[in-house]
Amino acid sequence: MVERLSIIGVGLIGGSFALAARRAGLVREIVGYGRRAANLQLARERGAIDRIAATVGEAADGADVILLAAPVGVCVALARELRPHAPADAVLTDVGSVKGGLVPALEHAWGTGAWVVGAHPIAGSEQTTVAAARADLFIGRRCVLTPTAATRPAAVALVRGLWEGVGARVEEMDAHRHDELLARVSHAPHVVAYALVDAVAAWAHGADALAHAGTGFADTTRVAGSAPELWRDIVLANAPAVRAALAEFGVALATFDDAIARGDGPALDALMGRARTARERVGGGA
Amino acid sequence: MVERLSIIGVGLIGGSFALAARRAGLVREIVGYGRRAANLQLARERGAIDRIAATVGEAADGADVILLAAPVGVCVALARELRPHAPADAVLTDVGSVKGGLVPALEHAWGTGAWVVGAHPIAGSEQTTVAAARADLFIGRRCVLTPTAATRPAAVALVRGLWEGVGARVEEMDAHRHDELLARVSHAPHVVAYALVDAVAAWAHGADALAHAGTGFADTTRVAGSAPELWRDIVLANAPAVRAALAEFGVALATFDDAIARGDGPALDALMGRARTARERVGGGA
Repeated sequence: MVERLSIIGVGLIGGSFALAARRAGLVREIVGYGRRAANLQLARERGAIDRIAATVGEAADGADVILLAAPVGVCVALARELRPHAPADAVLTDVGSVKGGLVPALEHAWGTGAWVVGAHPIAGSEQTTVAAARADLFIGRRCVLTPTAATRPAAVALVRGLWEGVGARVEEMDAHRHDELLARVSHAPHVVAYALVDAVAAWAHGADALAHAGTGFADTTRVAGSAPELWRDIVLANAPAVRAALAEFGVALATFDDAIARGDGPALDALMGRARTARERVGGGA
Repeated sequence: MVERLSIIGVGLIGGSFALAARRAGLVREIVGYGRRAANLQLARERGAIDRIAATVGEAADGADVILLAAPVGVCVALARELRPHAPADAVLTDVGSVKGGLVPALEHAWGTGAWVVGAHPIAGSEQTTVAAARADLFIGRRCVLTPTAATRPAAVALVRGLWEGVGARVEEMDAHRHDELLARVSHAPHVVAYALVDAVAAWAHGADALAHAGTGFADTTRVAGSAPELWRDIVLANAPAVRAALAEFGVALATFDDAIARGDGPALDALMGRARTARERVGGGA
């Protein structure tokens, strides 16, 4: 059992982790820190956190584990602020959707890689506040840990135990490999969804078209309802892989477009059939 | 009240219309015709249809309204087969996702445009069988009617009454305009979703990537689970508009990609924010 867990950023992910960890009896005390007082109060009312830390120093003080559940773009700065106030052997972990550049930066900010464990629970939605937090959010979902050569096995075991304790399927992976995979199935698809809405809206009769969209378009573009301040940073932090994924997608799309241009029904049938079959391998919520 | 309604193709849309029309007391007898005996039997067991027509002739015989709910690619051939067996003043209507080329072809096959009413209920899912049919599928959904100069107002009124009777919000629109709008919010997005899955599957580590997809990717690509034999024909029947929509999307995507290449956070933020705001105007299921 963890004596004191501090969660920095008590939104959908941080809040859900808190609710789940408490329900599973994994922690004695949960401290919450964040930018928005109203959100933190709601987190306390919902029983996600025991108390609100007024300052970064208070959040770090005596923490056994510090969970960074803030936007990717501010994690390193937060780690730097937390460091002087945290116990020397406090475990720092995160939930960021990119790991390659982030984990070494966190290790540097923490002064050592020994107690830093990069983590990415593949769960969430376009909603980001603690109001949407659920204790069962991680059950059956994957959580990727990206330890480095510097990470102490004991720190990995502790973080693994927490994620397994809230029901996630934990695996370890090289951070670069994680970013390559997630660029394909998350980061680039977010860009595609945003661009799809943007293209329709920019069209001469865009407003009329959007008004005639059905549930299919709503599904396809659901992630374009995600917060730009989160996804801007994720996409930029993983720019080379995201751009590679977009280029691959462009090639695939051109193949479909060519078949349409030729009026080639059999080719289109085969392409669509191949994609439909591949989609059966999709993990979450397929 | 319609005395006899014949539904050609009793799948998700045809079956749901039958269930809804019966519940609303809009028809006395519903006859079903289709390719798959097991599906028709299920439609009868579910109470969607009163009896199964063994032949096209039987389906047309004495019908006041014939609803073509078959794939777009076979509707004209079916209309031609039905014509000799149907009453002279039987109303022929359809549910096709494209209207521009289809409606004139149906008018031609029917020998007159007087009793042909093109219709497109904007509802459905990637499931296509009568097992998924629901009496409430059309409640609050749009249904676009595309009458031509040849269409008798009485025929339009009858078809309008049926769709309003099952809860749809009916509007009339030029068929070409309908196809331009739907290319943007339905046809091209289907192609995008298929291509997105196909690109990931074709990537060197595609299987691993798909296994790490979360609910976001599942949503974005849900319509890639749609039947290729339906969407191949829809896309080809509306090829110029679909290709125009894909080109517009390509421009939008390139704008996002440029911002990523420049590492331009503010530009990406603005683009994503603009798309997110536009998405709030999406109709169905947003």
